[in-house]
Amino acid sequence: MKVLVINCGSSSLKYQLIDSETELVMAKGLCERIGIDGSNLEYKRGESPKTSTQVEMKDHTDAVNLVLEKLSDPEEGVVSSLSEIEAVGHRVVHGGEKFTKSVLITEEVIKGIEECNDLAPLHNPANIIGIRACQSLMPGVPQVAVFDTAFHQTMEPKSYLYAVPYEYYKKYKVRRYGFHGTSHDYVSKRAAEMLAKDITDLKLIICHLGNGASVSAVQNGKCVDTSMGLTPLEGLIMGTRSGDIDPAVITYLMEKENMSAPEVLNILNKKSGILGLSDGISSDFRDISEAVASGNEQAEVTLDAYALRVAKYIGAYATEMQGVDAIVMTAGAGENNSTVREKICKYLGWLGTSFDPEMNKIRGEEFFLSKPEDKVQLMVVPTNEELAIARQTVGVVRG
Amino acid sequence: MKVLVINCGSSSLKYQLIDSETELVMAKGLCERIGIDGSNLEYKRGESPKTSTQVEMKDHTDAVNLVLEKLSDPEEGVVSSLSEIEAVGHRVVHGGEKFTKSVLITEEVIKGIEECNDLAPLHNPANIIGIRACQSLMPGVPQVAVFDTAFHQTMEPKSYLYAVPYEYYKKYKVRRYGFHGTSHDYVSKRAAEMLAKDITDLKLIICHLGNGASVSAVQNGKCVDTSMGLTPLEGLIMGTRSGDIDPAVITYLMEKENMSAPEVLNILNKKSGILGLSDGISSDFRDISEAVASGNEQAEVTLDAYALRVAKYIGAYATEMQGVDAIVMTAGAGENNSTVREKICKYLGWLGTSFDPEMNKIRGEEFFLSKPEDKVQLMVVPTNEELAIARQTVGVVRG
Repeated sequence: MKVLVINCGSSSLKYQLIDSETELVMAKGLCERIGIDGSNLEYKRGESPKTSTQVEMKDHTDAVNLVLEKLSDPEEGVVSSLSEIEAVGHRVVHGGEKFTKSVLITEEVIKGIEECNDLAPLHNPANIIGIRACQSLMPGVPQVAVFDTAFHQTMEPKSYLYAVPYEYYKKYKVRRYGFHGTSHDYVSKRAAEMLAKDITDLKLIICHLGNGASVSAVQNGKCVDTSMGLTPLEGLIMGTRSGDIDPAVITYLMEKENMSAPEVLNILNKKSGILGLSDGISSDFRDISEAVASGNEQAEVTLDAYALRVAKYIGAYATEMQGVDAIVMTAGAGENNSTVREKICKYLGWLGTSFDPEMNKIRGEEFFLSKPEDKVQLMVVPTNEELAIARQTVGVVRG
Repeated sequence: MKVLVINCGSSSLKYQLIDSETELVMAKGLCERIGIDGSNLEYKRGESPKTSTQVEMKDHTDAVNLVLEKLSDPEEGVVSSLSEIEAVGHRVVHGGEKFTKSVLITEEVIKGIEECNDLAPLHNPANIIGIRACQSLMPGVPQVAVFDTAFHQTMEPKSYLYAVPYEYYKKYKVRRYGFHGTSHDYVSKRAAEMLAKDITDLKLIICHLGNGASVSAVQNGKCVDTSMGLTPLEGLIMGTRSGDIDPAVITYLMEKENMSAPEVLNILNKKSGILGLSDGISSDFRDISEAVASGNEQAEVTLDAYALRVAKYIGAYATEMQGVDAIVMTAGAGENNSTVREKICKYLGWLGTSFDPEMNKIRGEEFFLSKPEDKVQLMVVPTNEELAIARQTVGVVRG
């Protein structure tokens, strides 16, 4: 089955066409600046080089239309007819407590996603726009919603409730949701395969260390805890997000800098994290690692604080599960940054895992950093959210 | 040496007169509603019953004066002359980065404490009022400031820096400070004695589980991390404080409940924690435990969430120190609440510690919950902040 995977932002649209039999990416790309001057379509077919075309897209329907034209173009395309595309899988950020797994999109489902808009005011409305655009241009093709929060819905109340007045949970659903669920789900299953064990017999800790970053505890195949919360701000230090802080920092900064609470929140989301802590060096781990290599002390402190936070979550989740069989790193820095990995792993030896500095030079592949005889395994497993969405989509369509 | 220990709040003053040779409490008590109608003086001499007297106190100088009269009263008192009181030890909440240990109070020290007022706007000014009152009534008697933050000043930047723009640290000293330092210091030293080991050879995790609650990691006698932050709001679930939450909860609730940020902060400090999560049952662990015993489900979830949070910090700090020799519980629930202790300890067996349910019935004493042969020891050590302040005071006065 050929599945079109769509990830819509407010002015962007990422897409991949995946053949679910071979699990190969037939084509992929990105529409940028939708509804803004200078919109742009990136397109890459298989192993061919990427092309970039300036073309007007006044809305997401224009964007989807251009993507479909490209995919079925007699010269550049990968399908001879659009009817070959048998399903569309949409990444939807927030499914609240309503959606605990991927679902076929109906009007009722769209209403349900809209009901979660409050919880993800920037993302969910954009996701719905993408769904509507595909519905209008590909009538009759099944559309599936794959939620970033769904995998975490197995958490128990003791893990997802905040210690705030309980009425806020009842009235406004204030609780921990967690994100990156598709990635945590995919990586935990793949790790179990690499360990040649049944996932229902394993205690896994998955560290998704991208620009957004989160850790999850996966026991017997189910998420029992995760570091992101009501929003993706909580937890690890990220590219530009602060992660955990004393909530009183907000009012303290409001007074000191004469800012409103939303202004402080904006800083915590967009100017903090490794960008903020490094005093503005970069939000990209590669730049920080380079700065460390050239002796920049603030960059070193930044990576040290980053790695410590990851290690502390690993220790916390190992305790929550009363043990851990494997610790898995994935996404940007997890897959590619040897400095970050080494700094994290130096905290983990006491758990019963070794660390091979030679293996740690590997980038972007599946491998073990530990030895087979270690009590706890340390692994790198590249994530693939689009493939995971395609698989889920096929699963839902085939019932 | 007889040391008067003073702990001043904005309208209250707790005191103890301690004989530093015997380390016995000669007398202790509390002044309440200072400057408010119906002020009250509690006084308890040695093992005698507590007395309570309604008496006007228009300010803290009145209160100190009444305490001194009581202590030297020919019938009820414990000293024949005030000149027997050779030193005063003041608990001061916030010493910022300026004070890394207890100090003899001079005008410069008071200025230093005032400079930290911004960081503890409710507490530091009250502490200074208490110091001024004692200075005026006991001229010539050395006064010592013992800071709640000082013990934690050994943390490294990777542990105390938040991932917010670094300029906020440089300009406004936004960072983790930690509190309950006197207790963490006292309990860690006492635990080392009970273990018959040199504290410089130990990795300890101290869980101070009072109405305010915090965990600290003490490696080789030095604090390396602690759960409270810029303010005492961060970290564990407490009696009425939320502890860790997604910072975005603040703006979410502001919108939903039409509140200002300070109003939300007030709720996070005073109406959250176990009081909030239990849907209003109580901020007192004893009441929650009773509700659990009578089958209240929300009370059970509350204690479960509380214990899980403590356990997660223990795991995090064990990982930060790359191991742990002993986990120590202290303060209200730590010393007295068997239900809470059991719920926490059920997460800890995998670390190499056992748990004796018979021993767990003990309350308010020093004891081991684990067996001597266990890899990790589990201990209960009652805290004694006043004695710790008295010891520090003597140490400073004797130089």
